[in-house]
Amino acid sequence: MRTTVGIIGAGPAGLLLARLLHRAGIDSVVLEGRDRAYVEHRQRAGILEQGTVDVLRAAGAGERMDREGLRHDGIELRYDRKRHRVDFPALTGGRSVTVYAQTEVCKDLIALQLKEGGPLLFEAEALAVEGADTDAPSIRFRHEGREDVLECEYVVGCDGFWGVARKAIPTELTRVFERTYPYAWLGILADVPPSHDELVYARHDRGFALLSMRSPSVSRLYLQVPEGTDADSWADEEIWDELERRFETDDDWTLDRGPITQKSVTPMRSYVHEPMRHGRLFLAGDAAHIVPPTGAKGLNLAVGDVVTFARALSYQKDTGSAELLDRYSETCLRRIWQAERFSYDMTSLLHRAPGATPFEDRMQLARLERIAGSRAAETDLAEAYTGFPFD
Amino acid sequence: MRTTVGIIGAGPAGLLLARLLHRAGIDSVVLEGRDRAYVEHRQRAGILEQGTVDVLRAAGAGERMDREGLRHDGIELRYDRKRHRVDFPALTGGRSVTVYAQTEVCKDLIALQLKEGGPLLFEAEALAVEGADTDAPSIRFRHEGREDVLECEYVVGCDGFWGVARKAIPTELTRVFERTYPYAWLGILADVPPSHDELVYARHDRGFALLSMRSPSVSRLYLQVPEGTDADSWADEEIWDELERRFETDDDWTLDRGPITQKSVTPMRSYVHEPMRHGRLFLAGDAAHIVPPTGAKGLNLAVGDVVTFARALSYQKDTGSAELLDRYSETCLRRIWQAERFSYDMTSLLHRAPGATPFEDRMQLARLERIAGSRAAETDLAEAYTGFPFD
Repeated sequence: MRTTVGIIGAGPAGLLLARLLHRAGIDSVVLEGRDRAYVEHRQRAGILEQGTVDVLRAAGAGERMDREGLRHDGIELRYDRKRHRVDFPALTGGRSVTVYAQTEVCKDLIALQLKEGGPLLFEAEALAVEGADTDAPSIRFRHEGREDVLECEYVVGCDGFWGVARKAIPTELTRVFERTYPYAWLGILADVPPSHDELVYARHDRGFALLSMRSPSVSRLYLQVPEGTDADSWADEEIWDELERRFETDDDWTLDRGPITQKSVTPMRSYVHEPMRHGRLFLAGDAAHIVPPTGAKGLNLAVGDVVTFARALSYQKDTGSAELLDRYSETCLRRIWQAERFSYDMTSLLHRAPGATPFEDRMQLARLERIAGSRAAETDLAEAYTGFPFD
Repeated sequence: MRTTVGIIGAGPAGLLLARLLHRAGIDSVVLEGRDRAYVEHRQRAGILEQGTVDVLRAAGAGERMDREGLRHDGIELRYDRKRHRVDFPALTGGRSVTVYAQTEVCKDLIALQLKEGGPLLFEAEALAVEGADTDAPSIRFRHEGREDVLECEYVVGCDGFWGVARKAIPTELTRVFERTYPYAWLGILADVPPSHDELVYARHDRGFALLSMRSPSVSRLYLQVPEGTDADSWADEEIWDELERRFETDDDWTLDRGPITQKSVTPMRSYVHEPMRHGRLFLAGDAAHIVPPTGAKGLNLAVGDVVTFARALSYQKDTGSAELLDRYSETCLRRIWQAERFSYDMTSLLHRAPGATPFEDRMQLARLERIAGSRAAETDLAEAYTGFPFD
């Protein structure tokens, strides 16, 4: 089997990349270890930056997103029983974000790929990337019970944090930057209309809470819990009680409860792998970097990576120059470090670390007061939240 | 001995307060434990915010400052061998700072006070504040070998972190917020024109460095050193060598050396005492709060406190209403917490903590890149540096 670009992983990064390459007249094959149903149902992020929305639309994958996605022009910060709204378009010259779940993005891209794209193989488990530093890299994989090899001009690892692609870069050439956090998110899906029409980020002495939504009838809510918490150790009513406490305000806002349909715990991690390229192997998305979910940046970074790769390869095809491909890692990392910084800052701003001192608590409140009181500080947040530009 | 306002301490806070009260027709007595020469020569801060300059000028204490002070329209951030200038007036609608040493401010205010103000007693050591929660508070002090009592309507403790005033507030009514830092500043005065005409804040893998000045012919420079460092353990040439390393750039900038005339180590601390008022006792400046020097906020916060007190007392004299006096603590603390936040953030941005991880190093660089690359983030810094408004 032979193709121009071998893509490992049919998450949003891999699927969007296949789509972008198809539109640019470059053929590719996508190998995905899981089956289609799994990919279409794993719950992940749900906030699309302005730039991500623009890219999906331009790729012809925006039709259902435009119909069903919820445009959000702001978020609410809640602290000390107070509420402060950050108005994105007013602060950023018209930018906003769209709530549209990653699973839906994947469904749309899979449908398009199967209809008019190149091969997309489910239950095709990548085993190794070989010859990354040669002109003929390949992916060894297992499909329908037997091993096969996909010969490529380029390989892009979109296979997530646990994937095999990253392992093909010799460790002596790499540098890893990492931070773990002593807390996690207990997330629920609930069949109840969201109690607020925009996301609510709450800083509370008992810990962080986030009110989000999947649709006008499905709420998505999160609670900061200690690292290693078992989701089942929380009874449904305990979760609602705790959410209610952390979202409390001085006005008459109330939290509506409903049946909890899903419950899970997400660990928090910051991770960056440098470089993101080795010869003809390129890493994209979670394969190269992880952010804690507080800044809603994970999916959007993956989109930025594959846009950068598709552009660079098109440039190479058009001009014969590998200049943009050679700069892939550097170009992506500039954006990634800004997103890492923002995600870290949003996390530190809103979560209560175990053993936090009273001084640290006041620092959080002073930062929130600063954002609420200074247009400059608020703009800094709004720009980062709605997204750093794709270079 | 009897007065309206008994002021403990003839640092900039106490001296300026006496001046402001004098201009408002309210009499006061200042008690200072040290002698005049000591007060006029202790090296402290040197950056006056726009608001501080305005207050000194309005108090008739700005003549020499306007002649000899150096107006600075920006600072330079240096990192990764790069230089980025923050242009204050362009970002803040015309605000700037003035380099004029605290000792000079004190000299000017002492001269004015002795010429036309109320009593200013040197070598008058305050021993205790008594009756703070009564209508007749007093200060017990020792002067010329004997104990005396100053009977007051109000007492203002401007006696610094180690003073007696704060001790008169019962601990069960107070809350203390504190943070110490695992590093300190080794500061030098050198007889050499400053190598740059604005302050240079340098972040380096070897630690923070600051280039500042006292006058066009005297440089003031600082190096981050481990907490507890003995200033004499650094030879003069070692200091210059280390400064040179930390200020290194990719262009042809050079650091000029000269004779070092003074050498000392400043510890770093964040500290806030709440409340700042107990009955008729009010705390101002370092008596109530300490910031690490990175944000250049200490002196300016003290000025903000005494402006707030003088205004509140004038209001009470004019209207009979104690409303502003009652709100003194709350009014000051709003500004103080913003300065604490800014000082903490500037410190964390630029110092290298012992055991800092590669991830944390990259966070610092990403923050600096953000400031250099986003007008919003840069404005946030410029607003804070040039000063939060006196409410």
